[in-house]
Amino acid sequence: MEEKNSVTLADVKAAAERIAPYIRRTQLLREPLLDKDLGCEVYLKPEMLQYTGAFKLRGALAKTLALTPEQRAKGIICSSSGNHAQACAYAGRLLGFRSVAVVPEDTPEIKIALTENMGGEIIKWDRSYQARWKKVREEVAEHGYTMVHGYEDYTVMAGQGTIALEVMEDLPELETMVVPIGGGGLISGIATAIKETNPKIRVVGVQAAASASNYYSRKEGHIVRVENQPTLADGIECCIASEVTYPIIEKYVDEIVIVEEDDIAKAVTLIGDKAKLVAEPTSCVVIAALMAKTFSVRPDEKVCALLTSGNWDIDLVGKLFKGEHVDGVC
Amino acid sequence: MEEKNSVTLADVKAAAERIAPYIRRTQLLREPLLDKDLGCEVYLKPEMLQYTGAFKLRGALAKTLALTPEQRAKGIICSSSGNHAQACAYAGRLLGFRSVAVVPEDTPEIKIALTENMGGEIIKWDRSYQARWKKVREEVAEHGYTMVHGYEDYTVMAGQGTIALEVMEDLPELETMVVPIGGGGLISGIATAIKETNPKIRVVGVQAAASASNYYSRKEGHIVRVENQPTLADGIECCIASEVTYPIIEKYVDEIVIVEEDDIAKAVTLIGDKAKLVAEPTSCVVIAALMAKTFSVRPDEKVCALLTSGNWDIDLVGKLFKGEHVDGVC
Repeated sequence: MEEKNSVTLADVKAAAERIAPYIRRTQLLREPLLDKDLGCEVYLKPEMLQYTGAFKLRGALAKTLALTPEQRAKGIICSSSGNHAQACAYAGRLLGFRSVAVVPEDTPEIKIALTENMGGEIIKWDRSYQARWKKVREEVAEHGYTMVHGYEDYTVMAGQGTIALEVMEDLPELETMVVPIGGGGLISGIATAIKETNPKIRVVGVQAAASASNYYSRKEGHIVRVENQPTLADGIECCIASEVTYPIIEKYVDEIVIVEEDDIAKAVTLIGDKAKLVAEPTSCVVIAALMAKTFSVRPDEKVCALLTSGNWDIDLVGKLFKGEHVDGVC
Repeated sequence: MEEKNSVTLADVKAAAERIAPYIRRTQLLREPLLDKDLGCEVYLKPEMLQYTGAFKLRGALAKTLALTPEQRAKGIICSSSGNHAQACAYAGRLLGFRSVAVVPEDTPEIKIALTENMGGEIIKWDRSYQARWKKVREEVAEHGYTMVHGYEDYTVMAGQGTIALEVMEDLPELETMVVPIGGGGLISGIATAIKETNPKIRVVGVQAAASASNYYSRKEGHIVRVENQPTLADGIECCIASEVTYPIIEKYVDEIVIVEEDDIAKAVTLIGDKAKLVAEPTSCVVIAALMAKTFSVRPDEKVCALLTSGNWDIDLVGKLFKGEHVDGVC
């Protein structure tokens, strides 16, 4: 496969065609019971109902289905202990190739088991981000693996963008799409698909206030590093915006807002109570952003909130449902 | 509307056509992550994602859409404090008629609010079942309401049966359908639709062991009364099988099994953890029945478990997710 150096609507459409036989085309859910709480006409895109419990499968499949048979035969490698690692493992088992994940040595066994149960191999390595990426490059050199980055990869972004094609097909009158920002691959794919289809549709990105480099980078006009504070939204920590996704976000995302921890916790319970879905806190930043009125919406505005994932310790979900405090992580 | 005295496949098809513009055609979910736990190829029909959080909306709409404009103008009445009352209220608001629910005077305010929020009117009355039905009949005589029974009504049954049409359309290779039994209206509609389409598809009914008149009635060959024990599955208490639904169940349901409270509680957590859905315990008897191997399935058997609803105190759902004990009710 040739390395791509951009993502376009055509890429997203091609990715959609590649992955269609393997993913769940999740049902867009109109949620009238949430209209009052969120101040608009609410639609949810429930990607926790994706086969691996998260949207990440779309990107992993878009990437690996575009590899040559020779590349696939050698296997893939990623640096992730979460939803992206599970997605790569699932894709590997489905399509018949090795999938290796390099994870921090202190990763909880329960998370490791999720990836291993999907057929993934695990290499425990240093906690430091740099040390793990060094290990990934060494493994690539030794075994000829293809490295599958969770967001700094235009083909992966195209895969995540397929969500937007489905939403626009199911709801042609869509006015605003609300999406979490972590590394930025998801919102890059989605914003590209939306703005290159209909620039009038607004794209709003949401970060946890505790870890919001994109938010502050936009304010400053260039990428800034922020000090991570503990957050429940552990899937979208972002102390420094990605150089690969930042320009796409600046080009296509209309607004970036931030949300507080208390609102994230309340949003998890609201979604459980009214939408009957188990959403992890990372997902729920988009709900928190609407609850807390961090950007303006009209009561009759058709707004789609993307719920990215549901893979969180069920015991902790239970605590949030009971209104008990749960500590964020850093 | 003429009173019907049976339910047929043609009735279910007619109901499907009537209600189609108003209900969510819930997505059938293939759940590979549950195959190992449940011992078969698992499909879930997630009716907690129905607009009112429960399948009951199908029956309420099938019934009220078949009324004459004159009947609708006078309004409807039911005896229910739960999912059926909410469904009737929702239908009333949607189609523009009054909907009254007679509820036990000790009904928790939180449940009453759910019905009132959907536009329903509430009459608090005696705890006794007989006294409330007497009140319903008096109200009918005084105001000309149409009485909408939650299960002893063939048009309501036809509405609930529409679930089976959708499952068979989405999964023509369906082999076994697993359904909770309370009053029996749901399984009567579903079993009729299935057996009159393809008698080879097996229909399994599940009751809570704590309250299982249909199970024991089948054993005895006639309707028997049982002593209700406390159960988490408060939506399907059944101390005496309905004379209206019992014959249909005997004609069309292949097996009736019972499940224990511990397994029901575990099933709620399993569905939250792996399927990312908030199911109330009543829903989860079908999962408990598979988990506990109360009937035999092949590992490659295509089994659809119907999750009926998700309307339960979210605090109690949280307790179950945390593995804490929750008392059943009687």
